[in-house]
Amino acid sequence: MTRTTGTVRIVGAGLLGTSIGLAFRKLGVNVVLSDSSPISTSLATDMGAGRLANSSDTPALIVVCVPPDVTAAVVAKELETYPNAVVTDVASVKVEVLASLTTENADLSRYVGSHPMAGRERGGAIAGRADLFVGRPWVVVPNHESSPTAVGMVENLALDLEATPLTLSAAEHDRAVALVSHLPQLVSSLLAARLLDAQGSDVNLAGQGLRDTTRIAASDPKLWVQILGANAAPVAELLKKLGQDLAETVAALEQPNAAGALATLGRALERGNRGVERIPGKHGASQTKYSQIVVMIDDKPGELARLLTEIGEIGVNLEDLKLEHSPGAPVGLPELYVLPEAEKNLIAALTARGWRLAG
Amino acid sequence: MTRTTGTVRIVGAGLLGTSIGLAFRKLGVNVVLSDSSPISTSLATDMGAGRLANSSDTPALIVVCVPPDVTAAVVAKELETYPNAVVTDVASVKVEVLASLTTENADLSRYVGSHPMAGRERGGAIAGRADLFVGRPWVVVPNHESSPTAVGMVENLALDLEATPLTLSAAEHDRAVALVSHLPQLVSSLLAARLLDAQGSDVNLAGQGLRDTTRIAASDPKLWVQILGANAAPVAELLKKLGQDLAETVAALEQPNAAGALATLGRALERGNRGVERIPGKHGASQTKYSQIVVMIDDKPGELARLLTEIGEIGVNLEDLKLEHSPGAPVGLPELYVLPEAEKNLIAALTARGWRLAG
Repeated sequence: MTRTTGTVRIVGAGLLGTSIGLAFRKLGVNVVLSDSSPISTSLATDMGAGRLANSSDTPALIVVCVPPDVTAAVVAKELETYPNAVVTDVASVKVEVLASLTTENADLSRYVGSHPMAGRERGGAIAGRADLFVGRPWVVVPNHESSPTAVGMVENLALDLEATPLTLSAAEHDRAVALVSHLPQLVSSLLAARLLDAQGSDVNLAGQGLRDTTRIAASDPKLWVQILGANAAPVAELLKKLGQDLAETVAALEQPNAAGALATLGRALERGNRGVERIPGKHGASQTKYSQIVVMIDDKPGELARLLTEIGEIGVNLEDLKLEHSPGAPVGLPELYVLPEAEKNLIAALTARGWRLAG
Repeated sequence: MTRTTGTVRIVGAGLLGTSIGLAFRKLGVNVVLSDSSPISTSLATDMGAGRLANSSDTPALIVVCVPPDVTAAVVAKELETYPNAVVTDVASVKVEVLASLTTENADLSRYVGSHPMAGRERGGAIAGRADLFVGRPWVVVPNHESSPTAVGMVENLALDLEATPLTLSAAEHDRAVALVSHLPQLVSSLLAARLLDAQGSDVNLAGQGLRDTTRIAASDPKLWVQILGANAAPVAELLKKLGQDLAETVAALEQPNAAGALATLGRALERGNRGVERIPGKHGASQTKYSQIVVMIDDKPGELARLLTEIGEIGVNLEDLKLEHSPGAPVGLPELYVLPEAEKNLIAALTARGWRLAG
């Protein structure tokens, strides 16, 4: 039972805008899309995220999904253009947006900020997916003038997209994301940057730990400069404290035989254990509920096509597929993801057809 | 065709020892297991990783899979007990082990260190799997006295287990893992430790970025104090450089409106982008040397197989393939990776055949 009624207008057809559109379309909600880039709009409409906006639309809810530095201006313009609509945005910083809107005398009763805690390191319409928000926190940020109706509509938006709404003030939100999002981003970037000094053969030893800790270092610098610039003080404070812990660790490593040095290292590692335990669902409440099957195939052209053709013959639908080429290795290891109820059937059928399963 | 001949003796039936045993047993190699814990040994033999070692064994190859701080002592004892066997170990640090063995006047001609770059979050015999090393780098670390026969046997061990052997000196190895393994571990621990100061509601906003960057902060402090203590100097040097980069970032965040502050942040983020690009793909391919082509396909069974079959007909070799299902979207977006010289040809041929390319 969908809570959102009327037309939803999405401004900005990037990752978040397209994902919101896809999710609403799945629910049968009327979605209209607008983006300053015609290519983005047409890609998002092609993907099924909604239809092109036009001047006769009468949206009930407007979701502004543009970069942080233009969010306030776009929200103000939407509030003015559509005097009956409730407007929200999805920018990662909230204090600065609200301050700008206040300065511009926008109608704050119809504005409620929001921030879905979901994303991917890849952006753009093409990365959009309808289930991006499932099970994720969605921060709802009312201001002192927001009408209860407006707040309710933004909460409904979160609920319809299967996210968990969580109400915070703009200041509370910005302090929290400094810790759980902005600090990890900077740390990951600084760590990955250290690889620039690496000798070629060093990075060949990279394992999953390095990959996980540096994954978000691939994020868009242009976007992140805006976010960090708009939330600089809380992030600076946290990064400074991390720097103090780091200096202590360096001192211990420089004199590993000094009394207490190993204890200092052990304490840092043990504090890390306790820190990670504070993260809810620390084992990564899996976003997808798919079963994984790994097949070992000969590393020669046509093998993967043959495998997929046979899976088609078996009649099992593939939900996800991952394959990373391994030069020099005599085998490829495609990872197949299927619905749990299809797993047993597929394993049996592949084995019967002579495929070799790994693990 | 298995390269390893004779009996393989594995000392230490944890994750690595058990996995090596399972892989060798699958190849029909005779494996004997020894562990100071009778429970571990019996668990590993029950799993099929080999049979219990006894005094009449005459191993040709001994693989020592015990914690780093006892590795040198166990290797020395094995060299002495089995004067005809070649001995290797799998410890994560190599300089200190070699230095200890040199001090103890061990027969270094029969010793070759090694380090398979594979693991799992879960340890113990029960987590063992025969395919743990498939496609992973396996560092082979000869010393100046290692006989060519001994080096060949350890390379064969890696090849038999379908890993990719990579020869480094002990110093080269330790410097490389300081960067790709030990630094990320410490950074992850220090970042996770910052969460101890968090207010309850803050960590509720945790997303995948925080989870990924702090995943390895859950690692065993006891093991890691040993590793870091045994490789302190190279790690200290790297962590110190990271601290300098961090201090620069703090300064920029403290004065975000100062001239050049945002540029400093942008540079740090952009350096992170370039750093993460240096990490080779999971099985050793450099991510950057392939061209990416994204195709929009109908989300119905058989479409991907049809695409891959046609790519085979076109005659282009696929280096990598990624597909993430996007529930709710009527299209799938497989990402094809090909050699840059094949890109133009493939784009033209796919377009001519009516496939729709995205982005």
